Amino acid sequence: MRDLASDLRHCAINTATLGFREPIEVVIDAVARTGFGAIAPWRREIEGHDIRAIARRVREAGLAVTGYCRSTYIPATDRAGFAANIEANRRAIDDAAVLGAGSFVLVVGGLPAGSKDISAARTQVAEGTALLHEHGKARGVRIALEPLHPVYAAERSCLSLLSEALDICDRIEGGAKDPWLGVCLDAYHVWWDPNLARDVARAAKRILGYHVCDWLVPTQDVLNDRGMMGDGIIDLRAIRSLVEDAGYDGFVEAEIFSTLNWWKRPIDETLAACRERFATAT
Amino acid sequence: MRDLASDLRHCAINTATLGFREPIEVVIDAVARTGFGAIAPWRREIEGHDIRAIARRVREAGLAVTGYCRSTYIPATDRAGFAANIEANRRAIDDAAVLGAGSFVLVVGGLPAGSKDISAARTQVAEGTALLHEHGKARGVRIALEPLHPVYAAERSCLSLLSEALDICDRIEGGAKDPWLGVCLDAYHVWWDPNLARDVARAAKRILGYHVCDWLVPTQDVLNDRGMMGDGIIDLRAIRSLVEDAGYDGFVEAEIFSTLNWWKRPIDETLAACRERFATAT
Repeated sequence: MRDLASDLRHCAINTATLGFREPIEVVIDAVARTGFGAIAPWRREIEGHDIRAIARRVREAGLAVTGYCRSTYIPATDRAGFAANIEANRRAIDDAAVLGAGSFVLVVGGLPAGSKDISAARTQVAEGTALLHEHGKARGVRIALEPLHPVYAAERSCLSLLSEALDICDRIEGGAKDPWLGVCLDAYHVWWDPNLARDVARAAKRILGYHVCDWLVPTQDVLNDRGMMGDGIIDLRAIRSLVEDAGYDGFVEAEIFSTLNWWKRPIDETLAACRERFATAT
Repeated sequence: MRDLASDLRHCAINTATLGFREPIEVVIDAVARTGFGAIAPWRREIEGHDIRAIARRVREAGLAVTGYCRSTYIPATDRAGFAANIEANRRAIDDAAVLGAGSFVLVVGGLPAGSKDISAARTQVAEGTALLHEHGKARGVRIALEPLHPVYAAERSCLSLLSEALDICDRIEGGAKDPWLGVCLDAYHVWWDPNLARDVARAAKRILGYHVCDWLVPTQDVLNDRGMMGDGIIDLRAIRSLVEDAGYDGFVEAEIFSTLNWWKRPIDETLAACRERFATAT
């Protein structure tokens, strides 16, 4: 297992951790100044801005871009809606290419309004992923399917299990591993999965990103009360060990939605806490 | 599929649906008066009371008892705690026998205080279930393992998937199906599971109980904002169809934790709503 205490360059900051309160330029500089190796920006910070200038600033700060967050939800109530969602994602993939992102992160979406048919939503996700994989390959952007905790199945992600994400990859690749398609693992979403060890081993080099935060007990809000590494009950060392044993050598990325705590603090304080907890609790 | 509209006798009320505001005798009479076929009481309504008298009142009201809710959590920080938890459950199983309950419902518990080791908690659950199965068999009480939604993995149930519950049954039974051990399925906990159809078919006659309510969108509270059948996004007809196709012919039981809505209403109003929604939306 790599030693995150001695080399913070293996660690990345997802900008969601800082609460989207500062312009992306300020965030880029703060992340680089604290010593991290990479950053994961969100579309809300990028779209409508000068993307080439942002990409240049990231490079000049000495940072890599891990994943570009995140997809427009795929399932829609009709084919026109589905096509529009795919098109929005194609444009975001084009931006990911400009940013030089390691991957484009697919948070796939839940049930379309009025639907109770999760199986139909999953069919749309599989079809959409195949289309986006094709576009990503053409643009040189890897597509990373991120399974979300089942608590989000209705509204954010009908893709819950790592095994499901790998099944989608298998079907699209037709048996041959394809470097342009894989998964993004987030400890918060998968820590509870009894098949995690089995499925991480199966994922192997398909793991394109690895996110960490912690599950607080009690948790006030399953969306926005995520904890700093070490403050909750996830055995983050055990999971990183599985992930690295499977062959993952990419960044370990902190992504902490925390309206109740970390988003209220100055960003340099949150970054310093991440630096410490990467070393002691991740 | 059975027609719940024409025969309310297939339907049961879990007393949690009524918010524990009335004495159990009042609840028994109200459930019987509304026309349901069975009731599922909780230990808080039974322990410390005259259990034989309650059992007689249930019988005289013409009701069956589906499951007796629920186990003391099994995982503990040390062996003495584990033993105490098992002993508390043995006493509850004795009471379930007096009540003539169809099963004793195991909500297995999450991580013991201070632990991050979900795998160790699961080992305790498997061991404890074997001990309780033995005791239940001696008392004539079936043990029903209830997988809970993964959102409760830390604090209430490290048993999340139906497949895990069936694995525990397989290991205890050593290959031979045993009528004293099975699972309790709750649509709220399993609706999102991509392997649900496969695992319900695998469960077959091991399904000892089937609970319904609905997943509201948005949900205010994942513990106590459960919805009346038809008010949320679970395809309850599709899931009941799977369950009955697997051979289940027991009660369909409404269990609705709803501090924000149904628990504020008179119990007869909630029971009438259940009656209607069993017919139209379950």
